[in-house]
Amino acid sequence: MKLSISESEYKSRIENVRKVLQRRNLDALYLTNATSIFYLTGYSFISTERPAALIIPLDGKITFMGPLLEKDHVPIKTKLIEEVKTYLDYPGEKHPIEHFAEFLKEMGLAKKRIGIDNKAGTSAMWGYKGPPITRKLPEAKFVDMADLVPKMRLVKSSAEIALMKESAKWANLAVSLLQEYVTEGAWDVEVALAASLDASGIMKKTLGVGYEPLRSIFPVSAGFRGQIGEMSAIPHAIGTGRRIRDGDVIIAEAGVEIGGYSCELERTMIVGKPSAKQKRYFQVMTKAQEAAIQKIRDGVECSEVDKASINVFKKAGLIHLVRHHTGHGLGLEGHEPPWLDIGNKEKLRAGMVVSCEPGIYETGFAGFRHSDTVLVTKHGCELLTYYPRDIESLTII
Amino acid sequence: MKLSISESEYKSRIENVRKVLQRRNLDALYLTNATSIFYLTGYSFISTERPAALIIPLDGKITFMGPLLEKDHVPIKTKLIEEVKTYLDYPGEKHPIEHFAEFLKEMGLAKKRIGIDNKAGTSAMWGYKGPPITRKLPEAKFVDMADLVPKMRLVKSSAEIALMKESAKWANLAVSLLQEYVTEGAWDVEVALAASLDASGIMKKTLGVGYEPLRSIFPVSAGFRGQIGEMSAIPHAIGTGRRIRDGDVIIAEAGVEIGGYSCELERTMIVGKPSAKQKRYFQVMTKAQEAAIQKIRDGVECSEVDKASINVFKKAGLIHLVRHHTGHGLGLEGHEPPWLDIGNKEKLRAGMVVSCEPGIYETGFAGFRHSDTVLVTKHGCELLTYYPRDIESLTII
Repeated sequence: MKLSISESEYKSRIENVRKVLQRRNLDALYLTNATSIFYLTGYSFISTERPAALIIPLDGKITFMGPLLEKDHVPIKTKLIEEVKTYLDYPGEKHPIEHFAEFLKEMGLAKKRIGIDNKAGTSAMWGYKGPPITRKLPEAKFVDMADLVPKMRLVKSSAEIALMKESAKWANLAVSLLQEYVTEGAWDVEVALAASLDASGIMKKTLGVGYEPLRSIFPVSAGFRGQIGEMSAIPHAIGTGRRIRDGDVIIAEAGVEIGGYSCELERTMIVGKPSAKQKRYFQVMTKAQEAAIQKIRDGVECSEVDKASINVFKKAGLIHLVRHHTGHGLGLEGHEPPWLDIGNKEKLRAGMVVSCEPGIYETGFAGFRHSDTVLVTKHGCELLTYYPRDIESLTII
Repeated sequence: MKLSISESEYKSRIENVRKVLQRRNLDALYLTNATSIFYLTGYSFISTERPAALIIPLDGKITFMGPLLEKDHVPIKTKLIEEVKTYLDYPGEKHPIEHFAEFLKEMGLAKKRIGIDNKAGTSAMWGYKGPPITRKLPEAKFVDMADLVPKMRLVKSSAEIALMKESAKWANLAVSLLQEYVTEGAWDVEVALAASLDASGIMKKTLGVGYEPLRSIFPVSAGFRGQIGEMSAIPHAIGTGRRIRDGDVIIAEAGVEIGGYSCELERTMIVGKPSAKQKRYFQVMTKAQEAAIQKIRDGVECSEVDKASINVFKKAGLIHLVRHHTGHGLGLEGHEPPWLDIGNKEKLRAGMVVSCEPGIYETGFAGFRHSDTVLVTKHGCELLTYYPRDIESLTII
């Protein structure tokens, strides 16, 4: 079973980059963003304080520049990177950016026009310090190309959509297990790990040797992120020390990495018999989500989708409980453009994939949010995630 | 049981920041780095495309600026942030950076001298785009203070060290469980999740209501990261599709978040009876680690520690198998300064905490690396991690 983007698709992405280089009269593209590098080559690495970059010359070998510890890793994971140039480590006796400048000289690029996604010459983090590459190659002309790869990523190919559909299946299993494993007195972290463990094991047995996580250490990530009871009112909660109790609203979520891609699936669940207020908030939330989904279609302005859910919340007199917009693009990153936001005039296009997740949150009480992964189509949309959305199915008794 | 930094310690950190502001004739500090914000306030948030920043005025209220979805989160997690100013969402009808400029005006800072860790005014990622705050407040004078908080973090307090020691205990349990759960035919991801699950549950039962993850969704992170058999030769492997076999060298690792802090514990294990070559490489690696640990002491140059392990590898004729330096600081981030690197002339100081993890890696065969968390002391060092290091203890039969 094919569980990653094919070599030929990666090649055609690189070809598209080279067409842009030619049109813009550039001699090379210099990429520091790890997601962009994965998108073009299928190669993923752990980003640290150690600078790393990919060089795609208009003519010449596609070259990864990075720490020695990536040297043997590259050829195992991709055939598209033709050369690997390394320095021993950071900070090193000579700074990595000095090495990068020399590597570019060796490649004949010292006086050329180079498109770049970050003029520092690196996206290294965690205490990294260093001079920008632009200072080390003063005769080169660097041109901002930060948008190039992110724009290519906006509309998904059929292969990308297939991987996200596969992801949605296993996210469905993971959320099923979360719901099954919730009990009063459980700590949400334990339920999360138990569901992630079992879903990972079943997925691996089902998909077999063809399955390998490319970008994630834990490929199935299921859980509640502390969104338990009154903490479910905090959309970006991280954790909670308390255990699950009868009467809690809880928000379950799962993502599963397949070939580098993931969907997003979130469900509001109620532990025990729902109260009248819980029912009301739940119904308004699902109505807002339905209204937003109804709007999603090729050619529609992103702001319109956000407005559709806002209107439902306004009519219900609950607009004061909104804490965020309706959704965001997804695929390779947790969030990516396009933004389903009232301020976003961009138009949706067939092949874009977005989360649809309007929510309401009352401090001290609870939060209510489902999230589905939605594919924009010519005449409407297709939901890639399909876990039940109704309160009966999501009540845990 | 106290499982986080006390309010008074956070207050004294903020007081130290204000002393620097006064000395440098600055009216406020503007921080975009989420780790720096946590270090000063105990408040952690999920970094996304939505700009967020902390403002510490010399006089006036400590203010968090960020998306509306963090508004109710802040007061639950910290008393040190005195005001929260928010925008609805990104990109929004008005750009968040425009809001930030207005918030700073409201705070009387529009024409003041402001120290800042990032002149963009945000560390937002994932497709974030926007103008730098410096352009939106042209009458303010922004002064680069990117180093201020990272420097404060270098030497750990006794409270920080206590949290890292507590972390080391549970990392020890997690690695014990990894070793216990390894079997031929297992997929490393499943062993990882099973050990993480069981260690999390036991830790929570032991520490009780006082334990809550502050910065991590999965507070116990144990596993192998694909470092199985020939893939153990790739120090920054991410995953592998194949299952564990007799004869494999595997590298187990665990980190556990306690009050925001973590240790690092890694052990090379051998599945089945070690071969002569495995034994030799293992012994050379442990000798290199011992030599490096012997060097660690207040006042010693970081490069000297790296040299100590390099010399062992050279004498053994295995220097060509080295792929990275000897170690790095740790505490709040996976890697942080100081770097135990041959090019680093900085001196170790008592209270610094570093990983000590020299390794050797032979392509197609295996990798050998232990990592321990080491506290620098006046006259030597103290190992916070204490899992057995010898080959007999680490052989799985």
